[in-house]
Amino acid sequence: MARNASLSGYLEFLPTERLTELHVLDTLRHVFEIHGFSSLETRAVETMDTLLQKGEIDKEIYAVSRIHQDERAGKEAKLALRFDNTVPFARYVTENAGHLAFPFRRYQIQKVWRGERPQAGRFREFSQADIDIVGDGALPFRCDVEIAVVMARALEALPIGDFTLRVNNRKLSEGFYRTIGINDTAAVLRIVDKLEKIGPDRVAQELIDTLGASPRQAQSALDLAQIRTVDGSFAAKVRELVGEDVTALLNEGLTELSELMSELNARVPGRAVADLSIARGLDYYTGTVIETTLHGHEELGSVCSGGRYESLASKGKRVFPGVGLSIGVTRLLSALLNSGELAASRSVPTVVYVTLRSAEDWGAAQDIADKLRSRGISAEVALSAEKFGKQIKYADRRGIPFVWFTDDDGRHEVKDIRSGEQSEAHPSHWAPPAEDLNPQIIRKTENL
Amino acid sequence: MARNASLSGYLEFLPTERLTELHVLDTLRHVFEIHGFSSLETRAVETMDTLLQKGEIDKEIYAVSRIHQDERAGKEAKLALRFDNTVPFARYVTENAGHLAFPFRRYQIQKVWRGERPQAGRFREFSQADIDIVGDGALPFRCDVEIAVVMARALEALPIGDFTLRVNNRKLSEGFYRTIGINDTAAVLRIVDKLEKIGPDRVAQELIDTLGASPRQAQSALDLAQIRTVDGSFAAKVRELVGEDVTALLNEGLTELSELMSELNARVPGRAVADLSIARGLDYYTGTVIETTLHGHEELGSVCSGGRYESLASKGKRVFPGVGLSIGVTRLLSALLNSGELAASRSVPTVVYVTLRSAEDWGAAQDIADKLRSRGISAEVALSAEKFGKQIKYADRRGIPFVWFTDDDGRHEVKDIRSGEQSEAHPSHWAPPAEDLNPQIIRKTENL
Repeated sequence: MARNASLSGYLEFLPTERLTELHVLDTLRHVFEIHGFSSLETRAVETMDTLLQKGEIDKEIYAVSRIHQDERAGKEAKLALRFDNTVPFARYVTENAGHLAFPFRRYQIQKVWRGERPQAGRFREFSQADIDIVGDGALPFRCDVEIAVVMARALEALPIGDFTLRVNNRKLSEGFYRTIGINDTAAVLRIVDKLEKIGPDRVAQELIDTLGASPRQAQSALDLAQIRTVDGSFAAKVRELVGEDVTALLNEGLTELSELMSELNARVPGRAVADLSIARGLDYYTGTVIETTLHGHEELGSVCSGGRYESLASKGKRVFPGVGLSIGVTRLLSALLNSGELAASRSVPTVVYVTLRSAEDWGAAQDIADKLRSRGISAEVALSAEKFGKQIKYADRRGIPFVWFTDDDGRHEVKDIRSGEQSEAHPSHWAPPAEDLNPQIIRKTENL
Repeated sequence: MARNASLSGYLEFLPTERLTELHVLDTLRHVFEIHGFSSLETRAVETMDTLLQKGEIDKEIYAVSRIHQDERAGKEAKLALRFDNTVPFARYVTENAGHLAFPFRRYQIQKVWRGERPQAGRFREFSQADIDIVGDGALPFRCDVEIAVVMARALEALPIGDFTLRVNNRKLSEGFYRTIGINDTAAVLRIVDKLEKIGPDRVAQELIDTLGASPRQAQSALDLAQIRTVDGSFAAKVRELVGEDVTALLNEGLTELSELMSELNARVPGRAVADLSIARGLDYYTGTVIETTLHGHEELGSVCSGGRYESLASKGKRVFPGVGLSIGVTRLLSALLNSGELAASRSVPTVVYVTLRSAEDWGAAQDIADKLRSRGISAEVALSAEKFGKQIKYADRRGIPFVWFTDDDGRHEVKDIRSGEQSEAHPSHWAPPAEDLNPQIIRKTENL
């Protein structure tokens, strides 16, 4: 990871780093699948029209075109690489609605591309891991709970340390702003979203300057944004700010967020905070909104974000509401690899390196390796009968934990390179300790 | 798979099809990893310069560019999507040579893009699964054997039925053509490569017309191409054709192919044929060449191809020889899905669907599901307390095999939807039959 990418913004892992990434991706997949989420992949390209529907991120889009245009070119749609997994998923849902069973739970772990200016922790190609539940017409609020719980469990299962889901609800925010007399709630959300970046004073000033809010309204907005509770007590604080004047929308938001906090505290204790500063500037969220802070890596911003959108997609009069969260896998992983916090114990899947006494032993050595492989133990055979010291060094350089020897009488011994311990073994019975079967992913917190 | 792609040449799977694809990818990964191959991924884009080095396939390349060019644009390299996994891997090896341990075994399963005219079984985005072994300076011939054996085992592990590795050796072909007096061996290989497409008569004519071969030389070339043996007896047939006149190069080719056939017959019996018609038109192969026919799907052409190249990559005076094979996963898979030969038993990973008696039971039902999940059993909870018939239908529609019921006294029962069998169960102890834990991939050969 000290290496420079040969193409700015495009990260490529070395084998050891890739093993760590694989561990992370496998773990996410396992958690998603035991909760009943189906895997899905969409094509890398979308039509430009599909991508520009949301209108706001055209600057980052990579266009794709055949370098040898021909007579077909004029008839073909302009294409571009996807910049997230949500827009392609929405398109996929409308196209395949007749073949899907709703509510539809899917996970999607794919690369996305953005032509952003490359900088630390920002890549032009990166992986996102999304889960969403999509309904046909309606989707119970319980799906918000389910999504938040599943993602918290996924993050808990990763070797990334402590994190906090910061949860809020758009209905609560919008209901509150309307209650205090600010009606351009989309604008106020965009301004409050900058709180961590520009601080409370400038947020207040912007609310006054841009929206014509009174100083008192601006102060109320800031008061709301300062509410952070680890339980349901945020509701009383909000009611304190607005007095008796609780609108239906605000009430609905309070009820939803209370239910979400209560379920999160029951199912993934200590992982969630009701943080009423979370605004998520984007227009399409309509209820639950979530951001996630990784402790000790606050510089990364939110490592997992998302929420509820009443209209993920629509097809004629048919509307598909959804709720989802997305982990920025590459950004998360590259930070932990760069800091030395995460590492794999070896650079290859191999558990056993079978040595050669003579060049003619290669076939017999492959037979030994095959006996190990048939029991799921990854094995590799030396390519030439160099001195044993050199053969051991080959294994050691890759972090392969065990080396296999066979003597002239056909007796087998296996050596643990790390301890130097050597003992008799049989290729049909010997097995490594369970923790050596796969590369170990080591989290070194002393580096923090 | 009866659906039309919304973008011509871009295939997207439905959840059930994706489960089949995942099974295939997981199986390949397992076989590659137990043989000590490291996972690797390279970026989707390469510089145009890198891709055009080989010079011949520029027509199919997809260029990539930011739609909002700015002052940086002029300084940035022109980019394009990769069209295979070999060129990016070669670039990766030279860039990271100092960080890799040679010989380096890697597998790489990634999508590639080609702007070809879409047609049945030809896609513009498709997955390739590659394995290669790369050496630094030298690479023993045993690596050819290893690659062929590992790939044959990978194909054997897939639910795709019988296949044949058709193996040949460039040294044998080149040595033979030189021996009979044809010196433009690259040209003759390109012509002989068309044998299956245009037939022996037109190949002979082309050899005569284009290369000025005599009718006797053309006949000799055809005689060679007709040699097919399941064992090492091809060598005697070749010697019969050339008489005493065996050059060193021809001899080397015969020796290598004999060793390869002997090892393949020992390690993956019945999977290989020495087929001296296999030429592989590309310039960079220098020894072993392999194509693979899937029985009953000869229309697919070769489903797994590759070979030996003495210079996969080079860096100054440093040369990296390699040997590798590549499976065209998407083409293979789409053919088997389309014909109905392959299918998954369900569309979701879920094993158990936990029903609700009343809306208030949701939390308790999640507790039951969590007990199952903690033991690796994928479970989903109903979102609302509809009639049981409706809840069962929900599970049935997705192919979920088991439905869970809890009565008012807290007694649990689990029902196998397929058999209708219902029995008492406990969420901390009950487990499904092993074959139901993951979706089953079913191969229906009666469709053949």
